[in-house]
Amino acid sequence: MQLRKLTVNGERLKNTIETFADFGRTDNNGVTRLSLSEEDLKVRSYFRSCCKELGMNVRVDDMGTMYATLAGAKEKPPIVIGSHMDTVKKGGRFDGVLGVIAGLEIVRTLVDQGITPEIPITVMNFTNEEGARFEPSMMASGVLSGKFDKAVMMSKKDPEGTTFQEALEASGFAGDAANRIQEATAYLELHIEQGPVLEREDLSIGIVDCVVGMACYEIEVTGESDHAGTTPMEMRKDALFAANDLITELRNKLGLLDSELVYTMGRMNVLPNIHTVIPNQVIFTVEARHKDMGVVREVEAIIQSLPVLQGECGVTTTKLWGRDTVWFDPNICNRVEQAALSLGYSHKKMASGAGHDAQFVAGFLPSAMVFVPSVKGKSHCEEELTSYEDCEKGVNILLETVLCLLK
Amino acid sequence: MQLRKLTVNGERLKNTIETFADFGRTDNNGVTRLSLSEEDLKVRSYFRSCCKELGMNVRVDDMGTMYATLAGAKEKPPIVIGSHMDTVKKGGRFDGVLGVIAGLEIVRTLVDQGITPEIPITVMNFTNEEGARFEPSMMASGVLSGKFDKAVMMSKKDPEGTTFQEALEASGFAGDAANRIQEATAYLELHIEQGPVLEREDLSIGIVDCVVGMACYEIEVTGESDHAGTTPMEMRKDALFAANDLITELRNKLGLLDSELVYTMGRMNVLPNIHTVIPNQVIFTVEARHKDMGVVREVEAIIQSLPVLQGECGVTTTKLWGRDTVWFDPNICNRVEQAALSLGYSHKKMASGAGHDAQFVAGFLPSAMVFVPSVKGKSHCEEELTSYEDCEKGVNILLETVLCLLK
Repeated sequence: MQLRKLTVNGERLKNTIETFADFGRTDNNGVTRLSLSEEDLKVRSYFRSCCKELGMNVRVDDMGTMYATLAGAKEKPPIVIGSHMDTVKKGGRFDGVLGVIAGLEIVRTLVDQGITPEIPITVMNFTNEEGARFEPSMMASGVLSGKFDKAVMMSKKDPEGTTFQEALEASGFAGDAANRIQEATAYLELHIEQGPVLEREDLSIGIVDCVVGMACYEIEVTGESDHAGTTPMEMRKDALFAANDLITELRNKLGLLDSELVYTMGRMNVLPNIHTVIPNQVIFTVEARHKDMGVVREVEAIIQSLPVLQGECGVTTTKLWGRDTVWFDPNICNRVEQAALSLGYSHKKMASGAGHDAQFVAGFLPSAMVFVPSVKGKSHCEEELTSYEDCEKGVNILLETVLCLLK
Repeated sequence: MQLRKLTVNGERLKNTIETFADFGRTDNNGVTRLSLSEEDLKVRSYFRSCCKELGMNVRVDDMGTMYATLAGAKEKPPIVIGSHMDTVKKGGRFDGVLGVIAGLEIVRTLVDQGITPEIPITVMNFTNEEGARFEPSMMASGVLSGKFDKAVMMSKKDPEGTTFQEALEASGFAGDAANRIQEATAYLELHIEQGPVLEREDLSIGIVDCVVGMACYEIEVTGESDHAGTTPMEMRKDALFAANDLITELRNKLGLLDSELVYTMGRMNVLPNIHTVIPNQVIFTVEARHKDMGVVREVEAIIQSLPVLQGECGVTTTKLWGRDTVWFDPNICNRVEQAALSLGYSHKKMASGAGHDAQFVAGFLPSAMVFVPSVKGKSHCEEELTSYEDCEKGVNILLETVLCLLK
């Protein structure tokens, strides 16, 4: 006879999600909780009080990242469950905060059961993951992992001209660099998928084995801005027509690569942008993502081999940035998969197309991520939705993984 | 033995062009002389004083348009030579003002020769042709021809919030509606080509038989703005890709129509225009011009038959405006052609791709236009250039036409 698995309290989880969403809830049931804003400071205080009620010790590091720790029976590197509580403007109720609430609910469940874990359990809240108030995104995890320079980040300004340092010092959440996490048994992050794949395939759990690599280029096409009425077609240097041909060529060539490759021309500006004037400049971005860096390199080769002249127009390509695929810890991923199997939840291994704090953490802590479905793939908007049932399954997966790691 | 033709004073013409360019001349030898600006009022006063010196009578109508008339021996409807003296911001020394200066130089030449014309000769300066300060362009000729409503035009505001009426009343150039021209023996307008055709074909004179008809549409493509990293290609509704395909289709189909057709997608806006987000909206204009309205109708049929769905994206087309081809008076055009032949100037008949006051005037007065070459086809910029020699030839063509009409 199989023993009933320990699972979290679904009703309490639902209430917690909605209580946290009250901090910055919008008229359309979304959330605006920019990093270190008044709403963010209130939710941080509330989160701290919840943790202290459970007997957890709460510390803050020099980037304002919070660590709430339930002591373990042994002084071992903790099992960490983390994510972020900041949102974009008019964001949703789930992105980020679900991963923090997951940690809180797991600790609540252990405390309910009178379980003192062998290993300490730390619930983390990263500062400014979204980068919606202070660019770049994943700011605190970037500093923690050594990818970003702290002094540079401190000088970043929000649109009102307030620096991150000023906002942090005024917040009461400026802590000590000595509190930065240095080692862990595991780092686990539960997040909404922010894509449509799980919903389409009717699956509850995504076991994220990597955050995909990417490359982003800017392509500038230069023509001449002559009069739209007086310049015969054969005498034109129309930058828009040239850009149109380049985009077609790129789409044709990129479309022949791997079916999992995604590519987007998301930003495009036309100058002078007057209906009676032939465009003399078009600048557009091309970004592509794939877990296999070989495919990303093929994309880059295609972009870099664009002609320097398209028709009569000049073409220049500039690489804006790129990142290599970050692979999560296979052992931790296996534990997550075992948890999904033992709980009987439908699941698949998948890549994350979006960036997350975990991708930086993975550089120095054994890490893994779990996705739950996003209705219609929507995120960063007020319509963002994950069913309470799927949220509960996601948290149960993390709890089961924690219990497995505690053995 | 052939008699030597009467021609204008080239040196004086050159000096007049440069003297007029002093009113608003820019650092880069262009001109900024927005309608009813301080520079425009000064050049108007200077023009009036030049005309009065020649014994001409100067009147102003209720739109500020100026009429300087050299009396004729007989009380017949005048021969009118007109254009405009306002420019765009950082425009050139030739666009518009050349046509007014042409009239002035012709009258100076007649007065020099002691010729009292049989028919009065009127030199006109239209107010606000460019529409650079108060939209729309060709404002005064539009009102004069009954195409625009005067009260609506009076209420048009410049970017500082000043209405056209306020500017006109403050200018001292608000005259009487009774001074509006009602009949003429001919209306002649000399203008720079604003296109590259005459230069390419090494011709001095364009005999303009029409202002081409046009149609301008706005096409809106609607998709969904999903995450560029998490949305598989086959699940996207990428408005930019759909717009790319539509533009290709339009270019392919329009390219099969007449070789003289010109078409331009001059304005294009992409939303949300973020490199990491799939575009959910692209709005672009398509405008096409041809002298044969049958070809313009074919263009409209192609645009109107665009699919309502391009891939997964919605497509809507809206006609912004259109105008029919305006044909100039064949008899006057023939006189101009005879003048070119008798002066031995290289020339061709051609259409005007740009709009001019003459296209409105042609609705109620027998009209014709003459083009002189634009170096590299440039206009509405400080580099705008027509050689003094070509300017002189253009004015000589008008003088010869006037002399022919006086016979």
